[in-house]
Amino acid sequence: MPYVAPVAEYKFLFDHVVGFSDICATARFEDVSSDITDALLSEAGKVCEEVLAPLQRVGDIQHAVLKDGVVVMPDGFKEAYRALADGGWMGISAHPDGGGMGLPLTLTSAVNEMMASACLSLQLNPLMTQGQIEALEAHADDKIKQTYLPKLISGEWSGTMNLTEPQAGSDVGALTTRAVPRGDGTFEITGQKIYISYGDHDMAENICHLVLARLPNAPAGTKGISLFMVPKYLPDDNGDAGQANALHVVSLEHKMGLHASPTAVMQYDGATGWLVGAEHAGMAAMFTMMNNARVGVAIQGTGVAEGALQHALSYARDRKQGRTNVSNDAVATGTIVDHADVRRMLVAMKADLFAARAIALSCAAAIDMGTATRDTFWHARAAFLTPIAKAFGTDVGMAVAAEGIQVHGGMGFIEETGAAQYSRDARVTAIYEGTNGIQAMDLVARKLADGGDAAFALIEEVQTQAESCRGTHEGLAGPLWEASETLRETTEWMVSQSDSNHRFAGAVPYLRGFARVLGGHYHLKSALAAGPDSGRARLARFYIKRLLPEHAGLLAHAREGADDLYALSTEDLLA
Amino acid sequence: MPYVAPVAEYKFLFDHVVGFSDICATARFEDVSSDITDALLSEAGKVCEEVLAPLQRVGDIQHAVLKDGVVVMPDGFKEAYRALADGGWMGISAHPDGGGMGLPLTLTSAVNEMMASACLSLQLNPLMTQGQIEALEAHADDKIKQTYLPKLISGEWSGTMNLTEPQAGSDVGALTTRAVPRGDGTFEITGQKIYISYGDHDMAENICHLVLARLPNAPAGTKGISLFMVPKYLPDDNGDAGQANALHVVSLEHKMGLHASPTAVMQYDGATGWLVGAEHAGMAAMFTMMNNARVGVAIQGTGVAEGALQHALSYARDRKQGRTNVSNDAVATGTIVDHADVRRMLVAMKADLFAARAIALSCAAAIDMGTATRDTFWHARAAFLTPIAKAFGTDVGMAVAAEGIQVHGGMGFIEETGAAQYSRDARVTAIYEGTNGIQAMDLVARKLADGGDAAFALIEEVQTQAESCRGTHEGLAGPLWEASETLRETTEWMVSQSDSNHRFAGAVPYLRGFARVLGGHYHLKSALAAGPDSGRARLARFYIKRLLPEHAGLLAHAREGADDLYALSTEDLLA
Repeated sequence: MPYVAPVAEYKFLFDHVVGFSDICATARFEDVSSDITDALLSEAGKVCEEVLAPLQRVGDIQHAVLKDGVVVMPDGFKEAYRALADGGWMGISAHPDGGGMGLPLTLTSAVNEMMASACLSLQLNPLMTQGQIEALEAHADDKIKQTYLPKLISGEWSGTMNLTEPQAGSDVGALTTRAVPRGDGTFEITGQKIYISYGDHDMAENICHLVLARLPNAPAGTKGISLFMVPKYLPDDNGDAGQANALHVVSLEHKMGLHASPTAVMQYDGATGWLVGAEHAGMAAMFTMMNNARVGVAIQGTGVAEGALQHALSYARDRKQGRTNVSNDAVATGTIVDHADVRRMLVAMKADLFAARAIALSCAAAIDMGTATRDTFWHARAAFLTPIAKAFGTDVGMAVAAEGIQVHGGMGFIEETGAAQYSRDARVTAIYEGTNGIQAMDLVARKLADGGDAAFALIEEVQTQAESCRGTHEGLAGPLWEASETLRETTEWMVSQSDSNHRFAGAVPYLRGFARVLGGHYHLKSALAAGPDSGRARLARFYIKRLLPEHAGLLAHAREGADDLYALSTEDLLA
Repeated sequence: MPYVAPVAEYKFLFDHVVGFSDICATARFEDVSSDITDALLSEAGKVCEEVLAPLQRVGDIQHAVLKDGVVVMPDGFKEAYRALADGGWMGISAHPDGGGMGLPLTLTSAVNEMMASACLSLQLNPLMTQGQIEALEAHADDKIKQTYLPKLISGEWSGTMNLTEPQAGSDVGALTTRAVPRGDGTFEITGQKIYISYGDHDMAENICHLVLARLPNAPAGTKGISLFMVPKYLPDDNGDAGQANALHVVSLEHKMGLHASPTAVMQYDGATGWLVGAEHAGMAAMFTMMNNARVGVAIQGTGVAEGALQHALSYARDRKQGRTNVSNDAVATGTIVDHADVRRMLVAMKADLFAARAIALSCAAAIDMGTATRDTFWHARAAFLTPIAKAFGTDVGMAVAAEGIQVHGGMGFIEETGAAQYSRDARVTAIYEGTNGIQAMDLVARKLADGGDAAFALIEEVQTQAESCRGTHEGLAGPLWEASETLRETTEWMVSQSDSNHRFAGAVPYLRGFARVLGGHYHLKSALAAGPDSGRARLARFYIKRLLPEHAGLLAHAREGADDLYALSTEDLLA
């Protein structure tokens, strides 16, 4: 089932939905031309179609395996990694000083999405490295930058993030890994970390671990955490991978999906590390990295959705089964896409994918505008959109992958078909980089801590667009405006709650309701750009008439508060 | 993670929600006492807890495997199967003439659910055999009944259903397997069947295949299909398994889940078969079997939901992570159930499980009332509830299993935890025995073909109960009555559509919306029975205030018709 990179879709979104031209109008990104964008998207698409996509199923079957303490990747992964590195795809957004292309995150996101559609397991590797590059650019001293950035950007070395410990997951502040200064500028790192994606592999010459640890006498909680660079091999005098460091892989997890991505338990036994950023300021550094990684995971969700949709659509256009009575001869194909229910599934998958992708790329665009202008408006916009993009993007990834199985009928449950893998692989995206519940809590607590300014500004945009086209598009603009009004009222309710539990109890349905409305906004924007007789206008109509109405149930749920929840004891649940 | 059979929950539902006493008041089931019910539920629960539950993960890891043409089951399955057979659990509802207990399907459903929670892979075997027993009781001649029923009921032999062929899935009428009469009362069966659950295994002495095939010169489509009994071993003069029949397992499927349940491709090479029922009347016989099997699959969905909920709740009550600020000291546990969002997930899982289980058991109860009274009202009620029970029960099974993973955070993605298996295993329940899309199409076409009588009678019951308690429970009765009114209007819209595509385009959201309202009805019934200060009343309140509002979006979607769908070409979807 060949993957086809949706290059034209990204270009439409760039040009008409997420404001890519505004990014290119800034001094920071003034060299980014339409030609460069087109060429990069096409080139990356080709690598994803030809090199990555064939590895999707190979990786699922072979798994990454731990042999004699070293992780061995499935057949073909080393070569594919090399193709990504040689193409410069690790460092599209990295600074040119280290060899990066210095291009917008919006563009990187489209490229990452193609990789994710083609082979999610492998794509997780560059995503981790990209995050590390960003953290080092922002926080490391010049020595570390000079040593690591060129190697990471070229893909000679690759990067990991080490946060979680068995007792410290969502509560990172509970971590206990220790870092003891040796007095020579280095630190001795001791502790165990879990869930380390690509903690080891045989595709790069060195693995660079960014590790969160505590200095002696550090304050408790997140305020006492520092960040360290702890490479698998210590750089020698030439800056190449030298002597082995005192760290090793204890084991790999047996996971539901993402089998080709090694998830390691890492042991640090007095390993040598270097401080990145200030003492006790590790969380801030990690958050820089995590915030953009969250957009990266949103894009993993939409990437899986694209892959699963293409897979299901291809099957449905080929499979003959049953009789239908399609009144519109122009669309009759004689295959199962003629069945109204199959078509409903496929169109809903497409409509949700468009909404999630537009939200994720708008978030990336806001980050780029913030980077380029340093305007607080854009920082706030990006911060507000990040949890929505992450949670909705991955929810859509899971839902589209699950519906993709359903379109296949019995074949969907058979692994050879490939539909099930999208569903198994996508499942973790709702969990890692902060579970979707954590994203929702972040949205209703931190991201509404401005009294709702960022939220109301976004809702205002939705309403302004809807009002501007009431005359020509009342059927779409009317329901969207009404929905945004309910969202505004619900946001006011949220902001007025001083007890955070009342916000948290409705956090997930609030986030989902917000995403439903935003999705309608971008669909309307798309319909306005493409014209009333376009497929995009028809898709927007489907979304606004059939999926947007879900906002009402979600936002009603969001406003119920915590009292009922805590009135139920866990004994009630056991009964 | 030990499974605990929720015996008290079944008894509450029997006594207060699904009208079990009405069943026991009929002449047919007058011998069923409360003592017998209690004893059977407890006894079955014990077997599921002690014998089946420990096999859940073993089966997932070892898989059923094809060795030298024979399927070998994972360790312990043979012994567990024997325990089920010896306990009489294959034939609880089978007629006493053949050695069955002759008990209501409602009771069988509760027992089957416990088996499904404990080990879904194994439970699928008795479910298939139960369906075969029922088909033979209703359609086979005395000779076949005498030969097969005692062996099936005792579990010495087990049964399969052979419908699907590569080109004939949802469209059964396209099947091509041939049956040629030999003139001696037997038929020569030739063809290939796929997706045959337990097509072979080493737990029983014989495997009895019910096979759909075409006689020479049979009419095209479903009107030309006949049903045959084709055993693996031909019965000898003593009625024991004798000479091998001309059939074999070609291969087993590699599936996303349900690894211990062998899904076979079966080849019949002029195998000997006997006609069951009249010539060309195979579909009617198969439908008898399939209808109750659909309730059986609904119960698989709720069974998985129960297992996944227990698993998640146990983890959440144990896992310490992060700080919470629970104002109600009475419910604070110091573990992650204190977090509002985790509690929201668990309570929603429980509330949906209650709704789905009440619907499925009400459907089984309606079947029992129909069996006992032969009243067309009950036949219509059972027929109407069946697709709702199947689709909603399995949707809830999948959703609860998916949320169970989420409650576990990172641990949920690791197979050792066991949470992922529920999700992988449950996935097929939305597909087999008629996909959930097929169920929804059945609901809006055949089951509304009475002009909506069965639907309106059910909605009337919802409204009558809601009106009866407005004085005391306005907060619950009011929203439920309003929702049922929207459901009534949507049903009127459905009934008024002469073009079936308009119905089909909204079939799935209509079914889901109907289930949402019915769930509220049973929750209210439960709250009324348990009293205003009960956990059940609190759970009902959660459902009605937070989940029932989803009906609005679903029913709005349901009323949109097919025009927009068919306005979108498949080219629009590719774009």
